[in-house]
Amino acid sequence: MRAAVYQAAGHVTVEEVPDAALVEPTDAVVRVLRSCICGSDLWSWRGVIQRPAGSRLGHEFIGTVEEVGAKVTTVKVGDLVVAPFQWSDNTCPACQDGIQTRCDHGGTFGAPGTDGGQGEAVRVPQADGTLVAVPGGRASVDDAQLPALLALTDVMATGLHGAVLSGAGEGDTVVVIGDGAVGLSAVLGAKAVLGAERVVLMSRHEDRAAVGRSFGATDVIAERGDEGIAAVRELTGGRGARHVVEAVGTPGSWEMALGMVRVGGGIGAVGVPHTMPQLPLFPVVRDHLTVRAGIAPVRHYLPDLLERVVSGRLDPSPVFDLTLPLEKVADGYTAMDERRSIKTVLAG
Amino acid sequence: MRAAVYQAAGHVTVEEVPDAALVEPTDAVVRVLRSCICGSDLWSWRGVIQRPAGSRLGHEFIGTVEEVGAKVTTVKVGDLVVAPFQWSDNTCPACQDGIQTRCDHGGTFGAPGTDGGQGEAVRVPQADGTLVAVPGGRASVDDAQLPALLALTDVMATGLHGAVLSGAGEGDTVVVIGDGAVGLSAVLGAKAVLGAERVVLMSRHEDRAAVGRSFGATDVIAERGDEGIAAVRELTGGRGARHVVEAVGTPGSWEMALGMVRVGGGIGAVGVPHTMPQLPLFPVVRDHLTVRAGIAPVRHYLPDLLERVVSGRLDPSPVFDLTLPLEKVADGYTAMDERRSIKTVLAG
Repeated sequence: MRAAVYQAAGHVTVEEVPDAALVEPTDAVVRVLRSCICGSDLWSWRGVIQRPAGSRLGHEFIGTVEEVGAKVTTVKVGDLVVAPFQWSDNTCPACQDGIQTRCDHGGTFGAPGTDGGQGEAVRVPQADGTLVAVPGGRASVDDAQLPALLALTDVMATGLHGAVLSGAGEGDTVVVIGDGAVGLSAVLGAKAVLGAERVVLMSRHEDRAAVGRSFGATDVIAERGDEGIAAVRELTGGRGARHVVEAVGTPGSWEMALGMVRVGGGIGAVGVPHTMPQLPLFPVVRDHLTVRAGIAPVRHYLPDLLERVVSGRLDPSPVFDLTLPLEKVADGYTAMDERRSIKTVLAG
Repeated sequence: MRAAVYQAAGHVTVEEVPDAALVEPTDAVVRVLRSCICGSDLWSWRGVIQRPAGSRLGHEFIGTVEEVGAKVTTVKVGDLVVAPFQWSDNTCPACQDGIQTRCDHGGTFGAPGTDGGQGEAVRVPQADGTLVAVPGGRASVDDAQLPALLALTDVMATGLHGAVLSGAGEGDTVVVIGDGAVGLSAVLGAKAVLGAERVVLMSRHEDRAAVGRSFGATDVIAERGDEGIAAVRELTGGRGARHVVEAVGTPGSWEMALGMVRVGGGIGAVGVPHTMPQLPLFPVVRDHLTVRAGIAPVRHYLPDLLERVVSGRLDPSPVFDLTLPLEKVADGYTAMDERRSIKTVLAG
């Protein structure tokens, strides 16, 4: 089969690789219908983190089940399935706590030694605990809905998780720092899933701000740093926002988050850069803050989000603004690296 | 009147000072029945933080109302009252959020220019929003109950706040790092107020551990650092504790908290040293942690805690192990500095 292969920084090719195949009786093999490129895939593309030459790429994909192991009971051949970017057994103590990204038997697609999403097919370990089937099957979903389902594999659930971690709920004011696909999804999650009333997006890119507005952002603030903080404070009667989603992960974005959050407020952090800043405790103590963070347990949110997408109540697909065939995956990396694309779909 | 006065590091005297007096119509004057010395009072005693010579000391006191301003309506002359260590209007947005320690019109007793608790009387600003009267009055409380009421002015409520911030509740497992008066109060708060099932106290001082056990600690761990972390993990099936109260505030205590908390768990921090460590974000992200901190809004907890003490359901008084007359306040500072006393009461 064909799959994207990492060669070196700035050099990704599509190669003939061994077909995805069952290894354990709890595995499934999924034929990929759509996959995409993640902001985190750019770390190795940019040479910021090391990745072994020859390793596979991509952790976001949807597809149809082609084969299942003897012990798989919840999905069957032919099912249209959505895969979270990590597999999980969904039964261990961490999974029972809703933290499937710390599953005792979990792992990430595209990690060295595994199949990546950016290929024709994927071996899915722990299929029962990982895959969620679209109830009506492939026939119930037209092609135009596939990107919306694809967005659930990572960014939509990750953005929502950030909003959840910030403590946002019905009627609340939420500020989202970060206008990448995750930040935009946080806007949509806060508004459409959690029912926030006022959602402020920090964005200086008009194309991204436009998606943010279509997702329900009530305000867009282009300023950064102290000016960005001042603008949010002005919008919130001087007191700051009760809920801030930190979807960047740099020292600068954390400074903004700490500067604009209201006394007693919450910061939900899903910005995970390759290096992690230190958090100054003083403002956390002084301002009675709640700081929550974590790699989003997509599987936890997937059944609900899937139902919303299939029923037409949620459409995160506008985070995708470029579609390429798998063979042109390198063009997608380049487009995202150069910020010409927010997020690129690979189709066929 | 007589009051403790800060002269220099290691040098506190009792002097004749101007009588406490009404300034604003929202003030009350309270005749002090009992006051005490706080761990934070030791910072200037040790010369770790600067304090103006001649400034007054102490922020924990109970007493009887001697005089009230024209606008005071909730307490009257003769009432037995408990004062939180900070005054607050209890009506501003921060107070309405339950964060009276960030009141728009708040302040701390004993700050330069104010009366301290370690004296014969105290001017209490914002009396209506600050003082809580014992329902039955002075006659309903015998002298033996006064230390329990005194503990509510800071440490009992602060310890409880730490347990609340850790997310602890009915049936939970909580670890308390810190065996000072606040840590011990966190044990009592977790057990007696929140209904935690298993409360583990990190303590290597037998006298403090004994108080902890009397407050409901089910386990006492003397080890620190990696050994302390390993001991907690062993007690919790290898996964760590869901709730950790950080009541010290040093880099070492934070490392312990981060090392022993379960994936998805919470750290509630009320340890406020004079210097604030940086919090490494990596373990927060990796372990899906909730970190909450803040100077306890004692006023928020006071009505409930007062009712518990008066009805005999809660007795935090064992945090006090030395009683001295006001004139011997310097001996109290010395005893606490030398760890011969957990916490010292000043009576008469």
